[in-house]
Amino acid sequence: MNVLVTGGLGFIGSHTCVELLNSGNDVIVIDDLSNAKIEVKDYIRKITGKGIIFYQGNVCDRKIMHKIFEENKIDATMHFAGFKAVGESVSKPLEYYDNNITSTLVLCEIMQEYNCKNLVFSSSATVYGDPEEVPINENSSLGPTTNPYGTTKLFIEQILKDLYISDNKWNITILRYFNPIGAHESGLIGENPNGIPNNLVPYIVMVANKELPFLYVYGDDYDTPDGTGIRDYIHVVDLARGHVSALKKLDKDNVGIETYNLGTGKGHSVLDIINAFEKANSIDIPYQINSRRPGDVAVYYANPQKAFKELGFKAEKNIDDMMKDSWNFIQTAKQTQE
Amino acid sequence: MNVLVTGGLGFIGSHTCVELLNSGNDVIVIDDLSNAKIEVKDYIRKITGKGIIFYQGNVCDRKIMHKIFEENKIDATMHFAGFKAVGESVSKPLEYYDNNITSTLVLCEIMQEYNCKNLVFSSSATVYGDPEEVPINENSSLGPTTNPYGTTKLFIEQILKDLYISDNKWNITILRYFNPIGAHESGLIGENPNGIPNNLVPYIVMVANKELPFLYVYGDDYDTPDGTGIRDYIHVVDLARGHVSALKKLDKDNVGIETYNLGTGKGHSVLDIINAFEKANSIDIPYQINSRRPGDVAVYYANPQKAFKELGFKAEKNIDDMMKDSWNFIQTAKQTQE
Repeated sequence: MNVLVTGGLGFIGSHTCVELLNSGNDVIVIDDLSNAKIEVKDYIRKITGKGIIFYQGNVCDRKIMHKIFEENKIDATMHFAGFKAVGESVSKPLEYYDNNITSTLVLCEIMQEYNCKNLVFSSSATVYGDPEEVPINENSSLGPTTNPYGTTKLFIEQILKDLYISDNKWNITILRYFNPIGAHESGLIGENPNGIPNNLVPYIVMVANKELPFLYVYGDDYDTPDGTGIRDYIHVVDLARGHVSALKKLDKDNVGIETYNLGTGKGHSVLDIINAFEKANSIDIPYQINSRRPGDVAVYYANPQKAFKELGFKAEKNIDDMMKDSWNFIQTAKQTQE
Repeated sequence: MNVLVTGGLGFIGSHTCVELLNSGNDVIVIDDLSNAKIEVKDYIRKITGKGIIFYQGNVCDRKIMHKIFEENKIDATMHFAGFKAVGESVSKPLEYYDNNITSTLVLCEIMQEYNCKNLVFSSSATVYGDPEEVPINENSSLGPTTNPYGTTKLFIEQILKDLYISDNKWNITILRYFNPIGAHESGLIGENPNGIPNNLVPYIVMVANKELPFLYVYGDDYDTPDGTGIRDYIHVVDLARGHVSALKKLDKDNVGIETYNLGTGKGHSVLDIINAFEKANSIDIPYQINSRRPGDVAVYYANPQKAFKELGFKAEKNIDDMMKDSWNFIQTAKQTQE
């Protein structure tokens, strides 16, 4: 299939391009490089031995989107493009709503125009808000979300549901990611956070890399075995494979609109992750306990059964893989720069 | 004050322009005439003896919005522009989300740029979804909405709340309208629905005007005294006065972000309205009972106390006024065309 990947040079997008190419698809990428590096294009070729067609631009720009659909016969779109920093979304809500929602509307309008109605959308487990129970399944109640980033995902899911109601020729798969970490085993592609990261593993990696003196652990008095928050970490390569599974189903069946959790179904505490990183890479990670952050919940992990049953998808990599690959990526990136 | 009124030649916008001018404000209007007639500009002058500054264009167009803010010192904006047909929103969700949400985002971005942070937003009681109890007060739970039109209103309210959290220099008043009907007593401005209207009174008027042979009443088996649905009808001139009250408070106080119901607090059934129209205008309205429409609820009326206490606003016109003025507008419009 010819797959358009928006935001295809970003963290999850780039890993998905690799898996798409490895499974025989052709890939067209649009990325405005606002949170990605152009070199990633070459790394994807290095890893897969195959090239992508690349357009530099923003999905909100109808002109470039028309050009892409004129120049390529697109069979399906995977829509990753969007702003994703939780903290920034609180201080710049208009930018987040505008960029994330408008890009989706423009994309869908253009897809409709060119009669390409197969879409995989990058959503997030954040749409569940504070969950009523764990593990979280796809029928769990949604919202309220705790920040504009999460709200854009929730709003877009609703827009896609309304789009399907208006025209049931659409095939839409919504993937709700839990906590994607790790990097490709080549060490060539991974996560490049800007500034002090919001997420645990990029933070640990910066401490390991001596860019920060220690790690803050936010809250050790949650109702969990060691008192720290529990999350469902999934290796980004597994996550990328989940997208390929979703695409195969889109291609084969008339799926209508379906939603899947992509997680491992296993919860790990903050201290578990610190210990796993220390053990996997033989590096000490000094940390200090800080107070809880507003909006953080105690325990959050997926019920991954629906994706397993309907997409045949199961995460294969473990925490040790995730810790090794996260650290390997930073080491490789350092060597490349030297 | 210099007030920018988006959608200012539409049904509620035009009546609000009249009340704004009558209370000593200067009015700048942007309207793309997609659901309004250019003659309304002259009718506003005829009624008030005062002119407005008019720009023809769409609020989503940043160029014209820049031009407006460059050429005028805007003190506050009243944002009416938007698509509003419930049925159409189900068949064209992308257009509704794009037009209603994007226009609001562009407007707020430009206002922020020009440091104009006083906004009155046109919301709707539809954000309450199926209400838990009546009368409905502003703290009643929101959603789920039953169509994309209502969802755009709900989403925009959330976007405005997030905007205020990001920058508390904003003063935002959200007005949730119940069922606006009637027309200006001059008969010059009123509601011009396109095609078969969704709403009761424009429908009755078309039957009275012999454009339709009879009226469908959707459901006579609701749990109400006469079995038909009960709504809170508010005269559009009262509604327009409510906007002026909201503006006065914005000008005087630091309101932050506040939400007000604009309704009368009185419920009238469908049969009440038909009878009132027949009596006020001495015209028979033949009707037939049809089955319930999906999404319609039995009883829906406002608790209008918050607007009364905090804005000093109270609806003054009664159902008889609403019926006479609705019919007078159509009669006057007919004479003008002849």
